[in-house]
Amino acid sequence: MRIGVLGTGMVGPAIATKLVSLGHDVRMGSREAGNEKAVAWAAEAGEGASEGNFADAASHGELVVNCTAGVASLEALGAAGEDNLAGKVLIDIANPLDFSHGMPPTLAFCNDDSLGERIQAAFPAARVVKALNTMNCQVMVEPTRVPGDHAVFISGEDDGAKHEVAELLASFGWPSERIVDLGGSGARGTEMYLPLWLNLYGQLQTGDFNISVLAAKS
Amino acid sequence: MRIGVLGTGMVGPAIATKLVSLGHDVRMGSREAGNEKAVAWAAEAGEGASEGNFADAASHGELVVNCTAGVASLEALGAAGEDNLAGKVLIDIANPLDFSHGMPPTLAFCNDDSLGERIQAAFPAARVVKALNTMNCQVMVEPTRVPGDHAVFISGEDDGAKHEVAELLASFGWPSERIVDLGGSGARGTEMYLPLWLNLYGQLQTGDFNISVLAAKS
Repeated sequence: MRIGVLGTGMVGPAIATKLVSLGHDVRMGSREAGNEKAVAWAAEAGEGASEGNFADAASHGELVVNCTAGVASLEALGAAGEDNLAGKVLIDIANPLDFSHGMPPTLAFCNDDSLGERIQAAFPAARVVKALNTMNCQVMVEPTRVPGDHAVFISGEDDGAKHEVAELLASFGWPSERIVDLGGSGARGTEMYLPLWLNLYGQLQTGDFNISVLAAKS
Repeated sequence: MRIGVLGTGMVGPAIATKLVSLGHDVRMGSREAGNEKAVAWAAEAGEGASEGNFADAASHGELVVNCTAGVASLEALGAAGEDNLAGKVLIDIANPLDFSHGMPPTLAFCNDDSLGERIQAAFPAARVVKALNTMNCQVMVEPTRVPGDHAVFISGEDDGAKHEVAELLASFGWPSERIVDLGGSGARGTEMYLPLWLNLYGQLQTGDFNISVLAAKS
């Protein structure tokens, strides 16, 4: 599949490399074509890897993954272009972490709002699925780094889009029974989980952790 | 032990009944002595159960448990009285859920603030431990309702107080390896987990669930 990956930080290259390794044709997007990190990534990732600006990557992709910094995501997606996102599954992995007030970061918005919701509202023709934003990028693409039946959450209003994302996650190594659909409004909850994630990271001293959901048989 | 339990909603009676069953001398506190629910609880719980106003319950307790509605907790603790809390372990189970804007509830404050922090700041001589606020009250007092190695989080600035709370949780049936100390600042994270809890509750259609934390061996 042709996939556009927006963002050159930690998450973008991790996701893009995984997608290339699975045989997809991946274009990494950044603010301007020729971004140093994107060029280096494309050279290293080899066949099936290319780079360009946000619009290049979004127009390339049949599916688009938002791996930009959450506080910059709406601007990045605006640069990607509404037409280049229309009708496409848009996986939103970003969290609106605000580091401007020091550590620990806060969320730039939350509680009665979320990045996932803002993106869906700003790009109503995109089929936004919030996913993978509750773990570090190494666990996203290699879930076996963490032992046990830990979970990945997906949410969004479009069931067909969530189904496509679940299939992609399965190809990353996520067993279907550990892909937890939170319904239409899960973005708020998963983004607001970040402070607990940061607490746990501080205590565990490793990013190789995740949570599982255990429930009584009903 | 003499314990004061503040609050007559769902959580207060569940905690108070468990404590009585463990042989503690428990006084339930509400705004005014003679509260109908508190009187009914004390009659049903039998020996070791009594009721009074917030100050009665707090002065009775060698340890105090805040089970009031989070948005009313600071007022309730003010009525309990700073002197009646000074030097005592104060377990804060409340979440500042705001139902005034409809469902799902939001948090009255979060992100750069939390109820646990507000309580510790308002009552600096109390030894505040945030605990148990990430699950429903039935699971709090009967963890075996949920299968598997699910976790209870404790946090606060006083290690001795956390140790005492961990012992109390052990008496509730929580194995020590599942009592996760989040350090000094976990209140924010655990309170902000509530929206995800609500998402999961909506999907699972049962309150008998919880999360576990899985980490790679370091």
